[in-house]
Formats: sequence, structure tokens, C-alpha cells
Amino acid sequence: MAEERTLTEESLALHEQWQGKLDVMPKCPLQTRHDLALAYTPGVAEPCKKIAADPSAVYDYTMKANTVAVVSDGSAVLGLGNIGAAAALPVMEGKAALFRAFGGLNAVPICLDTQDTDEIVRACIQLAPVFGGINLEDIAAPRCFEIEARLNDALDIPVFHDDQHGTAIVVLSGLINALRLVGKSADAVRVVVNGAGSAGIAIAKLLIAYGFADVTMCDVRGILCSTYEGMNEAQRAMLAVTNREDRSGTLADAMDGADIVIGVSAPGVITEAMVASMADDAIVFAMANPTPEIFPDEARRAGARVVGTGRSDFANQVNNVIAFPGIFKGALRARAERITDEMKLAAAVALAALVSDEELAEDFVMVDPFDPRVADAVAEAVERCAREGR
Amino acid sequence: MAEERTLTEESLALHEQWQGKLDVMPKCPLQTRHDLALAYTPGVAEPCKKIAADPSAVYDYTMKANTVAVVSDGSAVLGLGNIGAAAALPVMEGKAALFRAFGGLNAVPICLDTQDTDEIVRACIQLAPVFGGINLEDIAAPRCFEIEARLNDALDIPVFHDDQHGTAIVVLSGLINALRLVGKSADAVRVVVNGAGSAGIAIAKLLIAYGFADVTMCDVRGILCSTYEGMNEAQRAMLAVTNREDRSGTLADAMDGADIVIGVSAPGVITEAMVASMADDAIVFAMANPTPEIFPDEARRAGARVVGTGRSDFANQVNNVIAFPGIFKGALRARAERITDEMKLAAAVALAALVSDEELAEDFVMVDPFDPRVADAVAEAVERCAREGR
Repeated sequence: MAEERTLTEESLALHEQWQGKLDVMPKCPLQTRHDLALAYTPGVAEPCKKIAADPSAVYDYTMKANTVAVVSDGSAVLGLGNIGAAAALPVMEGKAALFRAFGGLNAVPICLDTQDTDEIVRACIQLAPVFGGINLEDIAAPRCFEIEARLNDALDIPVFHDDQHGTAIVVLSGLINALRLVGKSADAVRVVVNGAGSAGIAIAKLLIAYGFADVTMCDVRGILCSTYEGMNEAQRAMLAVTNREDRSGTLADAMDGADIVIGVSAPGVITEAMVASMADDAIVFAMANPTPEIFPDEARRAGARVVGTGRSDFANQVNNVIAFPGIFKGALRARAERITDEMKLAAAVALAALVSDEELAEDFVMVDPFDPRVADAVAEAVERCAREGR
Repeated sequence: MAEERTLTEESLALHEQWQGKLDVMPKCPLQTRHDLALAYTPGVAEPCKKIAADPSAVYDYTMKANTVAVVSDGSAVLGLGNIGAAAALPVMEGKAALFRAFGGLNAVPICLDTQDTDEIVRACIQLAPVFGGINLEDIAAPRCFEIEARLNDALDIPVFHDDQHGTAIVVLSGLINALRLVGKSADAVRVVVNGAGSAGIAIAKLLIAYGFADVTMCDVRGILCSTYEGMNEAQRAMLAVTNREDRSGTLADAMDGADIVIGVSAPGVITEAMVASMADDAIVFAMANPTPEIFPDEARRAGARVVGTGRSDFANQVNNVIAFPGIFKGALRARAERITDEMKLAAAVALAALVSDEELAEDFVMVDPFDPRVADAVAEAVERCAREGR
């Protein structure tokens, strides 16, 4: 705890020193009158005219070609909950900084002072001219589903809710490698996803799209099944593709005999006994932050073979930073209008492939975020899908 | 013309090479897991919590302290007119680049895909959490008046329409020096403002606030007076403080005997005969862009003593870049909630004072935009007003 307090204090002091984690810098020289005449008036009129004549030219002459909006309403920020737009800004600045550091893209934090679905959709549509893509961030479920779907319908730029799809891509990449390690195949394993919010649903969907045949979802009250009451629309829709035997019961019931459990839920809700009841070579991704559903040493002690968490201080960190910069880099390069399931799957496969047979190990199923190949591997996978119309 | 074509071609080629004139760069190191833990999760939770507990802390821990939104709807861009949001982006990027180069501030171009007054107001309010100020740009009159007024009422950050107030500040600074040169005083001269759009009205208002006692406005059809039909609300309001003898007639009638004429109108509308009819030591600011109301050599030939234009290739350029970076720099430093008339007047006086008695001359009434003292002189004037509650 002493170490955590120190990190907290250090972070706060640094944030006070930085006064914002982003600098917006000119790429063009502005030292002379001639420089001004080229970058600003009168020279700037020419690219304006070109874009007025042909709207697609905006990608040739402006930052739209390489700039993403990081949009949040501050309603579901980290583990902090609904702290509002202004309080969410340090997170969105950090996310924007990661877009540049890991993907070489510009990103602008946009914290909207509204939590109304219609207003968020409208604001994003109105903002779209400047941006080549929109990364939705820390927006509460189920609002986030509708916002993403409506924006993807309304706009010709990709809109991607990272808390859902980025997490799902990274989890899938880790599972591909974990299965490679233990020698099981996706269509033959039983998966339990604990947590039926936006991340849990997105993970389950992507796993199914990849070929996982037996996925069961749990919520805080137990297994989602036909007799479970009070599901929202998105959860109900998952019943058609998950829990094929319509089992009911608790998380413990679901995990009994399962090969894989993925926690996107709450601290400490997975016990050693539950892990011990799983199949041999069990895979446990416990991603509640900062305190996981079960700590790695406990899960190992109970028999798990591969354990991942959301934390950087344990092996196999499920870290979205290996996905979102490359996703947008590839999509912007290809001028893709959507991030399709095919792109997400290709990204996960590409990420998994960055861990070689020699490196693959219980504590190394997830590629290192600082591996310099990461963003381009993802970007190339996404770009290839886009070029092939997938 | 050959030279202009070359500038146009050079600017277009550079815009294609730049693909956007801005880079959004991290200020924080992001090389190690520890760096990520400080700038992003889990460390970032701490400044978030501070802001959630005390909203004013957003200025201590985020980019809001030094970041301006450059907002346009693309409805009145340069001399190009209503070219729309996307086509306006090269201009807004350029403006944002100038904010950094001349004022040391971050600025983000926001081109809104709507030209509805209510929607623009709503979008700016929703965007406000990230920004310490809003610079409205190239929004058509009379919509721009209402948008600025409503935003200043709704928000606790300064909202400033540069086409109006930036231009007015710079014109006033030039007139202060021109009068200093010719030995006349503001309360004793007759001023004609030709052009009764947003810039013309803002100029007239600020001159009157400074102490110019006799200002007459003209539109394309002649002098604004009680019998002039078809004025908009903003123009009608100006009648109470301008044209005190309620003269009617043409621009030529207005300029007959006048000491100062300020053109924010159209190419070539001021003739040599009109200038010749003015009082001795006439001052002519002909700011239509890129072709002025009258060219400097013509105005001089007709007897004008001081001539300014909007162009960088003639002396006395009326260039907003000497005002807006310092205006926002000072306002953000003081966390001013508005840009008051007192601040605008103080800024103009400070700009005028940067031209020393030794330097002051017919072709040097306006400070050089590249003079390194400019932004801080303006910022200090604005900050002083803010601290004094003016």
C-alpha cells in the first residue's frame, strides 16, 4: 500500500506540473511573413477551395487524415464511475497521449458536458468534420451501445468504443496464445465471462465470432439464462448465442469444469475453490481494476495454468494500448468507414502471432506493449481487411 | 499575378505535404510501464478524483488551463464565403498553429457540421469542459452576435469572436498611433466605417468606447441613418451611438471632410476622389482582402497620410495575429470569464505603445507581428484588467 500511495502522490504532483498532458504544435514554419502567407491567409484559401469543390480532399490537405477524437461523457471512468466530463479529462488526455506515442496519430480529448444519448450522438456528428475517427471512451452501458451504433450509421468515419472492442481484441489475442500453449482449440473449450456490461458482452461476441462454441455469461446475480430476470436488451440478445444448454446458477456453478474464465466484474469475486473446480490447464483472466477478481498467486495455487490481469505489475497484462492505436492507424490509412468484426479478429490474430513459439509461456501469452512491432502489426491487419472489403 | 499563382501553388503543395498543420504531442514520458502508470491508469485516477471533488481543480491538472477551441461553422470563411465545416478546416488549423506560435497556447480546430444558431451554442456548451476559452471564427453575421452573447452568458470561460473584436483591437491600436503621428485627438476627428457587418460594427463600438466621438457607418447602399431601410438589429442598435447628425447619402458623402476611413467592405470601392475630399492628414485603413478598397499608392497620391491594409506586402498591416494570442494568453492566466471592453481597450493601448516615438512614422503605425514583445504586452494588459475586475 505504501508503494501505491507513492504512485498516487507522484502522479498527482506530475499532473500539477504538466498542467495538461498534451501540446498542440504547428508542423508548419511560422517565422516569416511568407510562412504566414503560406500556412494562413492568403495561401490557405487554395486548400479550402479544393475541399469545397471535392469533400474527399479534406483527407489530402488537413489533419483529418491522422486525427482521432477521444470522446467521453464522463459517466463510467476507470473504476471511479460517473464523475462527469471535467473530471474525466485527465484520462482522455492520457488516452490521447497514448494514441500518439503508440500509434503516431493525433488525438484530441473531447469531454462532453452531457450524458443524454441523443445529445452525445448529435455532438459527435457535428464534430466529425475535423476527425478521421472517433474513439468512444468510458461511456456507461447500455447508452454506449446505442451511441456507437447510431454514429456508425450516421457517419462515414469509424466509431469505436474502446472499452468494448479494444478489450475484446486484447482478451482474444491472449486466449489464442493461451490455447496454443495448453493445446486446446476454441471450438472445444467452455468459456465463462463474468460481468455482463459493455466489455463482457463485447468479449463474448468477439470470442463467438472467432469460433468459441461454448460461452456462458454471468452477472452479479449469476448465470444469464432464460429464467434470469431484469436483463437489458443487449444482455437478452446474448442469450441466443451463449449458454447453449440454458444452465442457471451461480458463478461457481458456471465455472465448474470450465476451461476459461474471464472476469470484467469486481474485486475478489472469484475464489480459489472456483478455480480449483475448473478443467485442467485452466485459463483465468481477472481484469477488475485495480484489484482483480482473484490475484494471480491465488489462482495459480488453485491450479490455473495461465493467469492474466489488467495490471502492469503482473504478467499477461490485458492492456488496450496494444490494440487501439493500431486499429485506428490501420483504419485511417485505409480510410475505412467502420471497424468490422473481421478487422477486430484479424487484429487479435496479428497480436497473438507477435509472441513466438520460443517466447510463448504461462507468463507470456500477451505481447509486450512496448514491443515496437505492435501498432504496425495491428494496423496492417486492419488495413488489409479494409482493402479487401471485409 | 504570376507571383500570386506561385504562392497559391506553393501553399497547396505544402498543405498536401503537411496533411494537417498540427501535431498533438504528449508532454509526459511514455517509455516505460511506470510512465504509463503515472500518466494513465492507475495514477491518473488521483487528479480525476480531485476534479470530481472540486471542479476548479481542472485548471490545476489538465490542459484546460492553456487550451483554446477555435470554433467555426464554415459560414463566412476568409473571402470565400459559406464553404462549410470541412473546407474551413485548413483555416482553423492555421489559426490554431498561430495560437501556439505567437501565444504559446494549445488550440484545437473545431469545425461544426451545423449552421444553426441553437445547435452551435449547444455544441460549444457541451465542448466547454476541455477548453479554457473559445475563439469563434468565420461565422456569418448576424448569427455570430447571438452565438457569442449566448455563450458568454452560459459559460464561465471567455468566448471571443476574433473577426469582430480582434480586428477592432488591431484597428484601434493603429488609429491611436496614426493620431499620435498627425497630432489629432480621438474626440475631435470624424471617422467613417465602410462595411456594417460584424467587423465594421465591432470596430465602431470599440472606437466609441475608446473615445471617438463622431463615427459614421456605411453599408453597400450608403450611410446608415434613420431613413435607411432594411437594417438588421445590430445595425439599428448602432444608430444610437453613430452618425450623430443623422446624415444620409453615399460613402462619398460620408468621406467628404472626414479624418479617418476604415474599410471592411469590398475591393476597389474607395476612389482617389473620395480620399482627396477628406480632411488634411487623412488616415485610410482599407482592409478588404486580398484586394483592398483602395491600393496604398492610390490613396497616398490622393493625399492620404497614413494608409493601412490587410495585406502583408504593404506597410501597416492590420493583422489579428498581434491581438488574439495575447488576449487569450492573458485571459487564461487570470482565468477571466469574459473578454471585457476594458480588456480590448487596454490591449489596443498596449499594442500602440510598442511603437516608440522614434519608430512612429507614416508607414509604421502598427507593431510588427514578429516583434517578440507583442503577445506578452497584450496578455499583461488583459490580465491586469481581469485582476482589477474591469
